[in-house]
Amino acid sequence: MQKYVYGVDIGGTNIKYGLFSIPKMEMIQKYENETPTTNHETSVFQLVADTICMMNEKNKIDISQIEGVGIAVPCPVKNGYVEKCPNLKWQKIDIYSEMNKYLPRRIKIAVSNDANIAAYGENQILDTPHRNAVFYTLGTGVGGGIIIDGEILEGRTGAGGEIGHMHVFEGTEPCSCGLSGCLEQICGTNAILRQTKEFSLMYPTRLNLEKLTVKDVFDYAKAGDIVAMKVVDKIGEYMAISASILSVSLDPDIFIIGGGVSKAGDILIDTIKKHYKKHARFSTGDIPFTLAKTGNDAGIIGAANYVNMKRINITNVGARDKT
Amino acid sequence: MQKYVYGVDIGGTNIKYGLFSIPKMEMIQKYENETPTTNHETSVFQLVADTICMMNEKNKIDISQIEGVGIAVPCPVKNGYVEKCPNLKWQKIDIYSEMNKYLPRRIKIAVSNDANIAAYGENQILDTPHRNAVFYTLGTGVGGGIIIDGEILEGRTGAGGEIGHMHVFEGTEPCSCGLSGCLEQICGTNAILRQTKEFSLMYPTRLNLEKLTVKDVFDYAKAGDIVAMKVVDKIGEYMAISASILSVSLDPDIFIIGGGVSKAGDILIDTIKKHYKKHARFSTGDIPFTLAKTGNDAGIIGAANYVNMKRINITNVGARDKT
Repeated sequence: MQKYVYGVDIGGTNIKYGLFSIPKMEMIQKYENETPTTNHETSVFQLVADTICMMNEKNKIDISQIEGVGIAVPCPVKNGYVEKCPNLKWQKIDIYSEMNKYLPRRIKIAVSNDANIAAYGENQILDTPHRNAVFYTLGTGVGGGIIIDGEILEGRTGAGGEIGHMHVFEGTEPCSCGLSGCLEQICGTNAILRQTKEFSLMYPTRLNLEKLTVKDVFDYAKAGDIVAMKVVDKIGEYMAISASILSVSLDPDIFIIGGGVSKAGDILIDTIKKHYKKHARFSTGDIPFTLAKTGNDAGIIGAANYVNMKRINITNVGARDKT
Repeated sequence: MQKYVYGVDIGGTNIKYGLFSIPKMEMIQKYENETPTTNHETSVFQLVADTICMMNEKNKIDISQIEGVGIAVPCPVKNGYVEKCPNLKWQKIDIYSEMNKYLPRRIKIAVSNDANIAAYGENQILDTPHRNAVFYTLGTGVGGGIIIDGEILEGRTGAGGEIGHMHVFEGTEPCSCGLSGCLEQICGTNAILRQTKEFSLMYPTRLNLEKLTVKDVFDYAKAGDIVAMKVVDKIGEYMAISASILSVSLDPDIFIIGGGVSKAGDILIDTIKKHYKKHARFSTGDIPFTLAKTGNDAGIIGAANYVNMKRINITNVGARDKT
């Protein structure tokens, strides 16, 4: 009997779903609906379960053919437990228990932070997944995920992989995390736009500063615009500093760069690499950098891979025992 | 039959040995001899094996009672292989193969970098060893070791845990690693003495700058000397920045501070903690900091624990097959 898993990416605005056949991990169907805006703490799980049932019916799949549901959430999570998720207005939620209310307990559930999940998926889809990998996601926020020995590193409280908040410069402006000097304050989209405007006070530019987009900045940098080039160079330098710090700590096998900003492509990777050569210590200079491949599907592909690879779900069993 | 393991700490000047009974890990005898200064690539291993035989005889132990030999080396090492060790004038040395020339192959060998080994030992001797731990060793050099899921994180090339070379400030002076802005350049002993002299140009001090020691700096800081207090505060602040970076990356269960500088005691930990509170992101503010306990025996205790805990020595077998 053909078996399947779901990858579910719960965001503040939308919930994305992917139905995958196993073991080949072929995507059968993709779906998306809006994140409920009332009774978040229950309605999200109800909706996820209902959508899974609806997708099963549409694809003539019986619930007994579903092996697992992988779930990505936009907040720190530890063993399926979320202390607080401002995006979803959640507090003290045990996702395993919640999902078990709506789905048969036989179905394996695997949960992690969305960037961790994306890190897992990006590493897993490589021809040979690496043992240790670091994934950056550059968007409005800068996040990431760290894979050690093939496993997501959640850490003590689920803050593992929050590398957008590494202290990389002396700053005073507050970051979204409340502190300052974070990588996000140089490489996040808001920071990119702000820095472009700052550099434009010092250098000439053809950029339209009124209707500025991050895509413009990279496009104009490719075309030789001085301000755009300076901004891209700064992003590359601080990404390189951050990577060099992780190199002397973790010495990973690969750095993978994803998120909306990574659509800039080779110019981003090449600029990071150029600076990384200067900042890399010891034998870490030739760690490869690569662009992420799963794009907007990072969450669903990662979550499906994560639940598929998770063999014995001990923490899940523990959570079930608690209910 | 009582069984034993050895912990061997190979340094550039001396080799330290500890004989431990298992499973209780009681130290039976400690010994030390000078690191050979000729034919390093062979004489070190011959000497280690000879010393083990000598210690066995002295303690009326038969070689068949020896279960394993753990070895700490002062350089990056990956699966027992050393690419280059300036301190020992080694190049391309497979320590498993070398030791197998002098000891029965039945004896388990486990090798890692000295700071990694110390990290392992410091975590292992806690009442309940932590799953994830970060260890700093503050001495002439600043190094460290990272334990993830109870295992030493060697990384791709053995540079894992080289956290003394994290980029934490914008500097131009070259560090021992050849780059600049490293944690070692603020928290290593040379840096501590240099900074004391720099601060003494700006503030009054009772320190004897001609015969200055790191111990003096901490002692005078405890007594309220302004210059000494400023230096200790700076060390604490940059250690805290470094720890905050590792917190948002690894979110470890504990930070352990060792090395000669850590003999300063509570003043060091308290100053780090004070600054850490300001720099810690998200839920990482209450990660505990503790002083290392094994002192000068960190290498032999760590190495003995490491070989004792290493159950199936797959890489060792691989190395043996190569010989």
